[in-house]
Amino acid sequence: MTNKIDLILKYSLFLLVFIMLSCNNKETTVIKNKILKDNSNAKEAHPKLILTAQGVKEIRAQLGSIPIFDKTLQSVKEEVDAEIALGIDTPIPVDYSGGYTHVRHKSNMMVMQKAGVLYQILDDEKYAKYVKDMLMQYEALYKTLPLHPKTRSYARGKLFWQCLNDSNWLVYVSQAYDCIYNYLTKEERDTLESNLFKPFADHISVDSPQFYQRVHNHSTWGNAAVGMIGLVMDDQELIDRALYGIKDLKLDANKKDDDGGFLNKDGKAGFLANIEEPFSPDGYYNEGPYYQRYAMYPFLIFAEGLHNLKPELKIFEYKDGVLLKSINALLNLSDADGDFFPLNDGQKGMSYYTSALVTAVDISYHFGTQDPGLLSIAQKQDRVLLDDSGLAVALGIKNNQAKPFTKKSINLSDGPNGTQGGVAILRNEAIELVFKYAAQGSSHGHYDKLSYSLYENGEEILQDYGLSRFVNIEQKGGGNYLKENKTWAKQTIAHNTVTQNETSHFDAKYEVGSQHHSVLNYFTSDNDNVQVASAKETNAYPGTELLRTMAIIKDQDFEKPYVLDIMKIISDKANKYDFPYYFLGQLIQTNFDYKVPATLNPLGSKNGYQHLYIEATANATSENTQLSWLNKGKFYTLTTLTDTNDQLYFTRIGANDPDFNLRREAAFMLRRKNAKNTIFVSTIEAHGSYSPVTESAINSNSNIKQLEVVLNTDAYTAILITNIKGNTKLFITSNKNASKTGKHNVTINDKNYEWSGSYYFK
Amino acid sequence: MTNKIDLILKYSLFLLVFIMLSCNNKETTVIKNKILKDNSNAKEAHPKLILTAQGVKEIRAQLGSIPIFDKTLQSVKEEVDAEIALGIDTPIPVDYSGGYTHVRHKSNMMVMQKAGVLYQILDDEKYAKYVKDMLMQYEALYKTLPLHPKTRSYARGKLFWQCLNDSNWLVYVSQAYDCIYNYLTKEERDTLESNLFKPFADHISVDSPQFYQRVHNHSTWGNAAVGMIGLVMDDQELIDRALYGIKDLKLDANKKDDDGGFLNKDGKAGFLANIEEPFSPDGYYNEGPYYQRYAMYPFLIFAEGLHNLKPELKIFEYKDGVLLKSINALLNLSDADGDFFPLNDGQKGMSYYTSALVTAVDISYHFGTQDPGLLSIAQKQDRVLLDDSGLAVALGIKNNQAKPFTKKSINLSDGPNGTQGGVAILRNEAIELVFKYAAQGSSHGHYDKLSYSLYENGEEILQDYGLSRFVNIEQKGGGNYLKENKTWAKQTIAHNTVTQNETSHFDAKYEVGSQHHSVLNYFTSDNDNVQVASAKETNAYPGTELLRTMAIIKDQDFEKPYVLDIMKIISDKANKYDFPYYFLGQLIQTNFDYKVPATLNPLGSKNGYQHLYIEATANATSENTQLSWLNKGKFYTLTTLTDTNDQLYFTRIGANDPDFNLRREAAFMLRRKNAKNTIFVSTIEAHGSYSPVTESAINSNSNIKQLEVVLNTDAYTAILITNIKGNTKLFITSNKNASKTGKHNVTINDKNYEWSGSYYFK
Repeated sequence: MTNKIDLILKYSLFLLVFIMLSCNNKETTVIKNKILKDNSNAKEAHPKLILTAQGVKEIRAQLGSIPIFDKTLQSVKEEVDAEIALGIDTPIPVDYSGGYTHVRHKSNMMVMQKAGVLYQILDDEKYAKYVKDMLMQYEALYKTLPLHPKTRSYARGKLFWQCLNDSNWLVYVSQAYDCIYNYLTKEERDTLESNLFKPFADHISVDSPQFYQRVHNHSTWGNAAVGMIGLVMDDQELIDRALYGIKDLKLDANKKDDDGGFLNKDGKAGFLANIEEPFSPDGYYNEGPYYQRYAMYPFLIFAEGLHNLKPELKIFEYKDGVLLKSINALLNLSDADGDFFPLNDGQKGMSYYTSALVTAVDISYHFGTQDPGLLSIAQKQDRVLLDDSGLAVALGIKNNQAKPFTKKSINLSDGPNGTQGGVAILRNEAIELVFKYAAQGSSHGHYDKLSYSLYENGEEILQDYGLSRFVNIEQKGGGNYLKENKTWAKQTIAHNTVTQNETSHFDAKYEVGSQHHSVLNYFTSDNDNVQVASAKETNAYPGTELLRTMAIIKDQDFEKPYVLDIMKIISDKANKYDFPYYFLGQLIQTNFDYKVPATLNPLGSKNGYQHLYIEATANATSENTQLSWLNKGKFYTLTTLTDTNDQLYFTRIGANDPDFNLRREAAFMLRRKNAKNTIFVSTIEAHGSYSPVTESAINSNSNIKQLEVVLNTDAYTAILITNIKGNTKLFITSNKNASKTGKHNVTINDKNYEWSGSYYFK
Repeated sequence: MTNKIDLILKYSLFLLVFIMLSCNNKETTVIKNKILKDNSNAKEAHPKLILTAQGVKEIRAQLGSIPIFDKTLQSVKEEVDAEIALGIDTPIPVDYSGGYTHVRHKSNMMVMQKAGVLYQILDDEKYAKYVKDMLMQYEALYKTLPLHPKTRSYARGKLFWQCLNDSNWLVYVSQAYDCIYNYLTKEERDTLESNLFKPFADHISVDSPQFYQRVHNHSTWGNAAVGMIGLVMDDQELIDRALYGIKDLKLDANKKDDDGGFLNKDGKAGFLANIEEPFSPDGYYNEGPYYQRYAMYPFLIFAEGLHNLKPELKIFEYKDGVLLKSINALLNLSDADGDFFPLNDGQKGMSYYTSALVTAVDISYHFGTQDPGLLSIAQKQDRVLLDDSGLAVALGIKNNQAKPFTKKSINLSDGPNGTQGGVAILRNEAIELVFKYAAQGSSHGHYDKLSYSLYENGEEILQDYGLSRFVNIEQKGGGNYLKENKTWAKQTIAHNTVTQNETSHFDAKYEVGSQHHSVLNYFTSDNDNVQVASAKETNAYPGTELLRTMAIIKDQDFEKPYVLDIMKIISDKANKYDFPYYFLGQLIQTNFDYKVPATLNPLGSKNGYQHLYIEATANATSENTQLSWLNKGKFYTLTTLTDTNDQLYFTRIGANDPDFNLRREAAFMLRRKNAKNTIFVSTIEAHGSYSPVTESAINSNSNIKQLEVVLNTDAYTAILITNIKGNTKLFITSNKNASKTGKHNVTINDKNYEWSGSYYFK
């Protein structure tokens, strides 16, 4: 190795001296640049993008003594060896997601990236040869390819049906190319760059501006793809195009994409704009955690490349270090099992076990503050990146530095400047409440202002439906968004919030919704026993003000923390309000009689109502309507304040679902007609357990006797909670001026209450 | 200790000599008996029932060096200490199952049994005192008690609403009493025996003959309760009553119990009859595994007592050792997770983790052949009995003797002599098929001749609904059988078998059903790749013969073993046949078009049909109807032979369910009208996987291109299976004369096939 380097150095020096002696000034400058470029491409400079030459040296020195790294390496080696044994296939593209050619090209990109890494770490040329052979096949194929034959995308790729997947491919393959760069001859590199990489990068950018020139997770992939191959090729034009977008290009501000989102309303584009716009200062990503997870990989892997090769950009410090902050936000947007909350278009089950989060956790650890909590997540993931950051994590674990990653109550602002609402997560013991008062969430947003979902120990109590899509299951609409995503999943009635007059928030109009956001009233998590989030929405229904205050309260008279939910509505006219609870599980008991119809009919004809069957109806008979259910061995009880004019419904999802795309899940719904100003007050208790093995039902009854609104003014709402022992608690929330230090004084039933802060509880 | 024993021996000898010297002959005999009795009640003779004095000695010697035993002891100690700290409560009985007084008395009996054991093992009097104090409270309470105030039972108890629960109590409390026998004074014992135990035993036996004098799991508990207290009290009358039933009592042979079962049709009663009748020679219990598990505890714990105190009965060898055989049968009636198949009235989720199975496994190991497979189940259970058998298991585990308990395909005959049909379980890799061709199954039987359920790795693919009951959840009908158990769960249409003319088998008449059973055609599991069970039912529908042959086939062209299902029907008239598949999960694809109705209507008005909504309908269009679904990350495909007159339905359970007692689960149903002789042929493939974390769908399509009936005669049915590669396999089943050695010869499409055995496959 050193011999080779010596030789190169000698050759370079010789060349430099020769040139300087034989050329005039102008020529010298040109040739000097050429030499510098050649030099940076010389053997010692690759790999340089993600793996670095120095990193490889350190990894090789530690191999065999870093268990989680060694284990990952072994499993990647087995996977790649198996692929090598199967032989290379680069079929002519024909399929949508889930079809053979799609799956094959997707797999190829992954395997190439891994084989490149193995070549570097194991120093075994068979891996380099494999990557080279496959790249050469791609080179031969790519130059023959027209646009992908499937026409559904607004931006068709060549290897895949959409540019998005083409970009995925280039992000991975750039890394593979970097790893075998020096294994290839100059001629081979020139061939690949001229016939494959450069045209590939052009197709997803200058040839597909509607895809590339945006602030959107699709574009982030495009930017990273162009930038990463640019970094490897040392092509400043591509790097600039990646960072700042296509030069001098402005798109029509009114055009929309497949999902109904604006293509480029304000003309911003490029990787840096994609960091600026969608991330709030707290690191919340405007589309929600499911898409953040998806976008995370290109954000971080390209950032790592920029950190290595363009350190002057200080990319990890960009926008006050938002990239690393966003990882912490994302981890906090997962439940006790690590599953991301399915806000907006989110597929349930996606979790921090996904490989993008291995990248995120390792990079966050290595380039951040070496938070020992991240090591415990890496341990759960049970694998690391096979690069410098993975090595750092493996060493941290080896040295017993891992500590539990503790998720606490957290408030994450939304919007580029953190001023467009947010998402609050209240946590106490095993109970987690996710309260959404964010902005629209781009084209993947749902019309669900002030909605929430509730979890116990990672299991859903009241669910957010998530998206209507079976990602990558070809038989279900090619694995793409189903029409029920628009007709059901995005609609307000599909969420645990209020629907007015059977219409969705903003009339389900993206143009309107994307101009507005809810506003935080207050968030407080200082008191371990009472954590509260309160937010207001004034635009979802013009003329109507919604103020929702949600608390998790730990009271010694209760087995587990319970939820208090206060939705205060002020309107300029009488409306019909529908207030559903998407509970999961088996109905156990109600304190009211209900009737089941002989045949099931839909609840309505549009705005999502057409997808709900009415399974039972009742008139509320008492001031406190109560129902209990059992789910996965735990009991839950909803107690909600009703008046005798309220109607109660049990509904089930699945009406007008001609392809069985929807899950047949239940809801309980409260309907209040002809109400102008009104208030919905509920508690949700988690209690007890049932085991089919011991067959014993423990604490299967509610502990709440009564809820009462004892005050409801512009300034304050006060709820009296009486439990079955007869003990009472009073919760007073400040509907305005709710600062932490504000002083309040109010008289209820002749008794005076004084406190400072956002709420009173005693 | 030895000092005490010396003292007692000296005293006894002195007494004996004194008496022999001072009495005449006749008196001597009487008094000798009295002495012998006193002797057997002397300090060295207790505990003797389950724990033995010798066992206690050995346990004490091993304590601290037998991890699983030590751990169980510690956890029992913590539980009992916590109960002692709470204080004793023996409330006046008022509730049904799940209510406070029920739960409290149930808990008391368990805690007393455990405290008794702790007293013996830890030699700490606080436990004896606790049991004594509680027993004295019960003594004071019991003598004041009328019949339990709840009136629903056919045999009301005093502590509980039914004699069954009273019997549970006495089975546990007998053990507690035995453990503290010597801690009590003679006067205390006399008080307890006269005022509590004897009247208690009488109430559940002579005072409740309709409960006691039967062959039924209820009576088994009653027999064991009476027998165990009899053994402790050394009361031969009670012991005889337990073993042989109430002397000289015959019940009305036509009376029925709450569940519609005959009380005592043939006059048999007592513990021995309860072993004779319900167990087949293979150890299958006629009511099915859920009730076997329930009955297992009294069977085994009383047997252990009899073994210890009446060794001359050779109870574990009774009926060719059926009690221990039944444990093996029961373990084989569980899925990969140890959950029992919910045949007949079975609540899902009950598993070999239940405490009755800890008893069963430990006793089977200790009194059986020390099968090392049982030790691995004990390891999973993670606890042992705190007695001699638990010690044996703990020592076996400690000495590393545990081996996996391997469940293979097994055929279990039903009926006292093994001649009343049976249950066959076919297993290959992770696929398990449970095929039921048994007798009625007593009052807990369902009308489901030749039905089956299918599992992959412990997850249901095609489900058996189980019972309609929420055991011990008071809010749901007092925790008892719900009316939907009769109107839905027991009906034929609720099962994966054929319903003729919308009526259930035997017209759902218990009197008729209990006179019949299906008949095995053949069962074969010699070939690892092809396992087959075939059985015939001729009585379910008079004039109609059903012959079902089910195979699990492992074919190298398929990823996993698949099911072949052939239902051949011969009738003397044209009928309508309904053939449902209760699949669980999300519909993915069909090869036919279907229509969904605007409103949901029930499929019928009675016999279970009133509980099914029609969610979609179709006319079969091709010879092979196919549908795929996804459940818990795995894909499944049903391919079934149809003709163009067949109607197809998607149904959902839940119609006419006014209390939300039923689970909203789906089925696909094939309806064939105006058919006389016909055949249903299907395959069910398990294939591929989907992960929401990697979002990749693997092998999501069926591997079957075509099914074809190429021969269907009285003697043979032949199915040609063509896979997507075009490879074919021919399965010929012998419809009669299907012995293992029979020679067969048949010509199909001019080709001759010769084989010996029940089936041909190639």
